[in-house]
Amino acid sequence: MPSSPLAPGLPPLAPPSTAAALVIGNELLSGKVEEANVHVLARTLRGLGVELRRVVVILDEIDEIAREVAALSASHDWLFTSGGVGPTHDDVTVEGVAKAFGVRAVEHPLLAKMLRDHYKERCTEGHLRMALVPEGATLEASEEIRWPTIRFKNVWLMPGVPEIFRMKLPVVASHIGTGTRFVSRAVFTKMDEGDLKPLLDSIVENFPDVGVGSYPKWHDTTYRTKLTFDGRDEARVDEARDAFVALLPEGEPQRTE
Amino acid sequence: MPSSPLAPGLPPLAPPSTAAALVIGNELLSGKVEEANVHVLARTLRGLGVELRRVVVILDEIDEIAREVAALSASHDWLFTSGGVGPTHDDVTVEGVAKAFGVRAVEHPLLAKMLRDHYKERCTEGHLRMALVPEGATLEASEEIRWPTIRFKNVWLMPGVPEIFRMKLPVVASHIGTGTRFVSRAVFTKMDEGDLKPLLDSIVENFPDVGVGSYPKWHDTTYRTKLTFDGRDEARVDEARDAFVALLPEGEPQRTE
Repeated sequence: MPSSPLAPGLPPLAPPSTAAALVIGNELLSGKVEEANVHVLARTLRGLGVELRRVVVILDEIDEIAREVAALSASHDWLFTSGGVGPTHDDVTVEGVAKAFGVRAVEHPLLAKMLRDHYKERCTEGHLRMALVPEGATLEASEEIRWPTIRFKNVWLMPGVPEIFRMKLPVVASHIGTGTRFVSRAVFTKMDEGDLKPLLDSIVENFPDVGVGSYPKWHDTTYRTKLTFDGRDEARVDEARDAFVALLPEGEPQRTE
Repeated sequence: MPSSPLAPGLPPLAPPSTAAALVIGNELLSGKVEEANVHVLARTLRGLGVELRRVVVILDEIDEIAREVAALSASHDWLFTSGGVGPTHDDVTVEGVAKAFGVRAVEHPLLAKMLRDHYKERCTEGHLRMALVPEGATLEASEEIRWPTIRFKNVWLMPGVPEIFRMKLPVVASHIGTGTRFVSRAVFTKMDEGDLKPLLDSIVENFPDVGVGSYPKWHDTTYRTKLTFDGRDEARVDEARDAFVALLPEGEPQRTE
């Protein structure tokens, strides 16, 4: 096995798994509801060493969902859909995912039984729509979360309701958490981005394996710009941060993390 | 002019203008920063009668930005980019937009002058990166907001910092607000979506010109499901809501808006 050019003698880190999110819901694009799942998904994936590379938000339209699911699932290791899995006319995610892969949406016997047991004599055709899955889907569950999550190949069909979305993340994590996690360091300074640019450029050039970010803060008395250093090789991330701090003038930084 | 099939005698409403948003920033996809501009953009556009149809969030990569800008600006009336317009190495939106249209990124004399006047002898090459625009871009400003917003054809280059993004929205509104605005009504009930489905289906069938949404609420003692009715023809929206309310059993709805 070749050694890493950046850390001689050590085997190179395998590239991270990649992920995309497809967020479905007219209510988000009309501004009626504020999206609340992407941020928590991003943080969860980060902790698992999975790189979230793209998020797409679209309307409740089957053909549009099918097109995006086909494209995003082919170009990423994992795809997470959020929303559109309830019983009403605007819940068309299952049909969209099925169409993306050219299979039918069919009633899953276990989900149908769970719905009938739960709603008993009140169970309607509407409730049973929640038993539909793309034909061939698997159900993922854990001891803590009885209600399973639908997975079809590399696509996880997550609910849009934020409280339920969060409840399901541990099940996701138990299946996909195999990579080296990302670490992140930060430096806070009172310098502005225009003055920081040449210093940052030298770090970016010397540490191509570390992601360097620069974020100005509006209205904060303790600092003006936050610099971040990210990667999966902790020693290299620390080295990049320390090299940057060494370039700062006297009186800086305000603090580091 | 043909009359509307839905409101005989009245001319049909022109279809709404469409918009997309392209949100650029590694910090959003890594979960380091929570996205805060899409929701306010969505609400602003809604009030202007413009339909936001798609949001895409991507990394700070020029080629990726160029690809998305080319596709989204061709398929929508307006495109708003958010982020990547500062002075550092990860601010590559101007270059990405320029590349999408096959033009160069050039220094705009007015922006360069404003930056030099502001930073005076402290003005660096880094600061002057903020004077770059896609060649042929226009600068949009208003009396209230001295610092202009870069527009190239139908693409508005908005800043990622939420406070500045919000400050710039009135300038956008003064240029694109020509359509009939959307109106929205809501009905709150204690029924669940499974039971509501047949009632909703009948409204969806009879009011194809009204958008009908159904949103379950988790942990609320005053209602279980919120139904929404949206459109640009206020009378039709009210009619759809009232027709739905008439289908509800005794004791419902809990309230309407």
